[in-house]
Amino acid sequence: MDYQSVLDLIVDEVRPLVGTGKVADYIPALARVPAARFGIALCTIEGDVAFAGDAREPFSIQSVSKVFSLTLALQKIGVKLWERIGREPSGNPFNSLMQLEHEQGMARNPFINAGAICVADQLVSHCAAPKDELLALISTLCGEAVGFDPEVAESERSTGFRNAALANFMKSFGKIDNDVDTVLDVYFNQCAIAMNCVQMARAFAYLANQGVLPTTARPIVTPRQARRINALMLTCGTYDAAGEFAFLIGLPCKSGVGGGIAAVVPGRLALCVWSPGLGASGNSVAGMRALELFVTRTGLSVF
Amino acid sequence: MDYQSVLDLIVDEVRPLVGTGKVADYIPALARVPAARFGIALCTIEGDVAFAGDAREPFSIQSVSKVFSLTLALQKIGVKLWERIGREPSGNPFNSLMQLEHEQGMARNPFINAGAICVADQLVSHCAAPKDELLALISTLCGEAVGFDPEVAESERSTGFRNAALANFMKSFGKIDNDVDTVLDVYFNQCAIAMNCVQMARAFAYLANQGVLPTTARPIVTPRQARRINALMLTCGTYDAAGEFAFLIGLPCKSGVGGGIAAVVPGRLALCVWSPGLGASGNSVAGMRALELFVTRTGLSVF
Amino acid sequence: MDYQSVLDLIVDEVRPLVGTGKVADYIPALARVPAARFGIALCTIEGDVAFAGDAREPFSIQSVSKVFSLTLALQKIGVKLWERIGREPSGNPFNSLMQLEHEQGMARNPFINAGAICVADQLVSHCAAPKDELLALISTLCGEAVGFDPEVAESERSTGFRNAALANFMKSFGKIDNDVDTVLDVYFNQCAIAMNCVQMARAFAYLANQGVLPTTARPIVTPRQARRINALMLTCGTYDAAGEFAFLIGLPCKSGVGGGIAAVVPGRLALCVWSPGLGASGNSVAGMRALELFVTRTGLSVF
Amino acid sequence: MDYQSVLDLIVDEVRPLVGTGKVADYIPALARVPAARFGIALCTIEGDVAFAGDAREPFSIQSVSKVFSLTLALQKIGVKLWERIGREPSGNPFNSLMQLEHEQGMARNPFINAGAICVADQLVSHCAAPKDELLALISTLCGEAVGFDPEVAESERSTGFRNAALANFMKSFGKIDNDVDTVLDVYFNQCAIAMNCVQMARAFAYLANQGVLPTTARPIVTPRQARRINALMLTCGTYDAAGEFAFLIGLPCKSGVGGGIAAVVPGRLALCVWSPGLGASGNSVAGMRALELFVTRTGLSVF
Repeated sequence: MDYQSVLDLIVDEVRPLVGTGKVADYIPALARVPAARFGIALCTIEGDVAFAGDAREPFSIQSVSKVFSLTLALQKIGVKLWERIGREPSGNPFNSLMQLEHEQGMARNPFINAGAICVADQLVSHCAAPKDELLALISTLCGEAVGFDPEVAESERSTGFRNAALANFMKSFGKIDNDVDTVLDVYFNQCAIAMNCVQMARAFAYLANQGVLPTTARPIVTPRQARRINALMLTCGTYDAAGEFAFLIGLPCKSGVGGGIAAVVPGRLALCVWSPGLGASGNSVAGMRALELFVTRTGLSVF
Repeated sequence: MDYQSVLDLIVDEVRPLVGTGKVADYIPALARVPAARFGIALCTIEGDVAFAGDAREPFSIQSVSKVFSLTLALQKIGVKLWERIGREPSGNPFNSLMQLEHEQGMARNPFINAGAICVADQLVSHCAAPKDELLALISTLCGEAVGFDPEVAESERSTGFRNAALANFMKSFGKIDNDVDTVLDVYFNQCAIAMNCVQMARAFAYLANQGVLPTTARPIVTPRQARRINALMLTCGTYDAAGEFAFLIGLPCKSGVGGGIAAVVPGRLALCVWSPGLGASGNSVAGMRALELFVTRTGLSVF
Repeated sequence: MDYQSVLDLIVDEVRPLVGTGKVADYIPALARVPAARFGIALCTIEGDVAFAGDAREPFSIQSVSKVFSLTLALQKIGVKLWERIGREPSGNPFNSLMQLEHEQGMARNPFINAGAICVADQLVSHCAAPKDELLALISTLCGEAVGFDPEVAESERSTGFRNAALANFMKSFGKIDNDVDTVLDVYFNQCAIAMNCVQMARAFAYLANQGVLPTTARPIVTPRQARRINALMLTCGTYDAAGEFAFLIGLPCKSGVGGGIAAVVPGRLALCVWSPGLGASGNSVAGMRALELFVTRTGLSVF
Repeated sequence: MDYQSVLDLIVDEVRPLVGTGKVADYIPALARVPAARFGIALCTIEGDVAFAGDAREPFSIQSVSKVFSLTLALQKIGVKLWERIGREPSGNPFNSLMQLEHEQGMARNPFINAGAICVADQLVSHCAAPKDELLALISTLCGEAVGFDPEVAESERSTGFRNAALANFMKSFGKIDNDVDTVLDVYFNQCAIAMNCVQMARAFAYLANQGVLPTTARPIVTPRQARRINALMLTCGTYDAAGEFAFLIGLPCKSGVGGGIAAVVPGRLALCVWSPGLGASGNSVAGMRALELFVTRTGLSVF
């Protein structure tokens, strides 16, 4: 398939939507990002890359990082992780405390904030240097060095009262083992990683390739783990719009409030779109439309 | 692939689980079903059928009927249906009223009871004889006449206070157009349809075949509608265990408290398992394990 | 104390508020009531009556009737009633189903709709002719014949889907013994009783007089029951504004969406105000202000 | 009335209950308190004191302190306090976050933990030395120096993750103005104040006396403020058992998990009971029974 033409066409077609929606403004570093940006990139399981638009401009990956921290935690402790975190869609906003109260501090899945904080707690327990190891993993996945944006990380911390509430709440139920501030430091930093679309497409290609990094043939996770991460992305990866994504797009996706969305076509390729304007569900407006167009043009839905 | 051997092997492997779990006992007609039953059948998009175990023994399809009523409603009114019903996983038990209260009587998706009652209301509005048309559709899909079990339907009605609460509650928000008793009559009857595994595998094959009935090449829904029904099954089809199904099985599935589960492998085949013993999530214990084995043996997961 | 002068003064002072707020309009018979009405009456434990304004104009007592049905149920079955209904404020709107779901169909208190429907169910179980006995009790209490407004009762029934949902929901938890329609018939009729302020002040005087009807010295409930009904009125009698009433007025009160409010000054008198315009909490705007003025003028708060 | 005899009788009558229930054990300093203790004391509006049992043994006042911090906040900022905190019963456990999420971080009332933390935040804003001023107020009220138990305060802090969650959560909604740790330091210390029954009875007497300290005739709050604090105690003062207290006891009460309960008979006296064994609702078992007996013996209920 001529993916380059498909991506070029999509850049044209989504243009009217680029700049619409609302750029995340809860921290200044995100609010400053120009709305009128759109990038798209893909990486096949053969390691071939295609991209278009602002695909080389770095953005804050925010919640997309939850796939990487989950991957690292699975490498470290495997199935034991699921004793601490559920695998069900939450049906509630990503930062809700209500469900957590009902369910005695057990986070529904690793892609809502509570679950990701719980994953970060496990990384603190099982990694000598969790932040460094997370960066190392992502750098391996995309083949280039990536780093934290310290200004974003600091902003996350100074406004992160809701996340501090989640962490303290789970701690009150005995579901967080480590010091709350230490755990949140990992979490706030992982949200503040900067990547571009090409890097992110490369970094997700192992999930399309049964857990194996296409370029180096290095196994990152087992084939079963890769399938299960994909399943979690499809059912839980896009805040409370997971049903909508499955219905309209039909691919495992993970989105972030920085406007990035990573998607996986199992057995084929990984895809990354980025556009900062968000819709009501907190997902990139132009990004969602681009994914829908990609699936329509290529027929590559899992359904 | 030699599906017959796969099914035969599965019958052997799940034997220790058959008879475990708890047979639904909220109505006598279901409670009487012997626990020690297991059937499995599949129908490929070429129309080939394989089956094993008690695959010719009829059972009460219960919530599996929600896929058929949704299909009929989409045939009748298309996308307008989604003005009345959402498409998101609920994160709550299938018969919860809480979420409905928060969301002003708008059902989360067509596969929880509230949503299926809302679909039944639309059938009452748009069909001259909704119950007959539903039976006609299913008979077309499986190529054999199917019918309501009047004893089960009557039992559903006489114990269906929770469903009456849901219907009245939605009506109080203006989300039900027709008389509550008329709507519930359709709903209680559709739950009381009896089918066997072979019939159900045949009846779901259009969802594996882009909406087209394999045996007759007759289009039932559009390719896009078929994909979207599959997406809904994957995210919302198995009560509050949708995440677990996606994680362990990775196929669009719809289950019922009668112990039946229908599954779809897009582009390949439809599959039906039946065993009356239910686990904590209300899904067939042996049925879930059989589907997991099928995916492991064949590699046919969407992820 | 010269109560007549106090009431006359209050009529003057609340005049600017009379006609403000929103007349209940969920049924035509209530929506037709002119907003610009205000009546006030009191009855001391000696049986003396004072009144002012539209105190002789009948209005629909609606939820104020819940005190009468509770009184009749306590006469019939005494403390056993509390095995079926709680005694705690709900913290939720009067017709919420959420709490009921959490608490397995056990209504929080007899003054929210769920609790009053549960009381009606007990009346059906323990009275030969529940509606007649309820009217007989109220007629005894106020010394005059009172009756149901059949138009209002019929309207309640034809729009009462939320109440039908509550009743069916409790029935699904085994908390309603009788046929749902029979129970709702009692409930819808009790809401449709018409009384005027003078009648209502007389009818509540037993609660100020240790359970004894002042005029006839006839015991209606025991002194302890009277104290406990007063306690329930104070904590649960005014929808989700019970805290506000206690804070601003400091008397046991029961309000209805017809705009009536009954209040009790234990050891002194019962008081009734009526004005159809309701505030956000569903309580009469001018009525609440009148009660606040009465307490300020007379110093008669329980605190 | 011969209050001394009444108290002596009560000590005899509650003896079978003393030592039953469960001593609070979430911090070691509370868990160490012997269960078999019971003290009772009262102080009339004339300043006369009676007491019996372990009325001179200090205990941790815990949530009873919320009345004192509320009093200090009303002295400092008056009615403006109610722009920040509601006045309605919560209908939920004292430390629930659910309701707070629904209501955008606005605490239901000053006697649940969220509300008391919000009061502490206001004290930090409006007092030069909030902890010292709170101790000074209480010392004035009871006529003796009282102090914080530093071991208890430290334990509260090191286990207070739920309260940290509440504070951070309200901060995320902009409902806390000051640094979370500073606010919690005030809150954890106020919970750790030690008093005995005689001191507490004296310290609550102003609420029985229209806001005026009986012994010194010094006004602490206005008569209206005193009435309103009493109203809040009755509707919200005893966790989620406020309805039960009103029903069985019928007095404004404030309880703490240390086993203390303060009660007010407006126009007559203040009463304090203490016994560490708690019932399911978190209130002292023997203490509740003692208050019920006191009301029965003396007839002093507000209803």
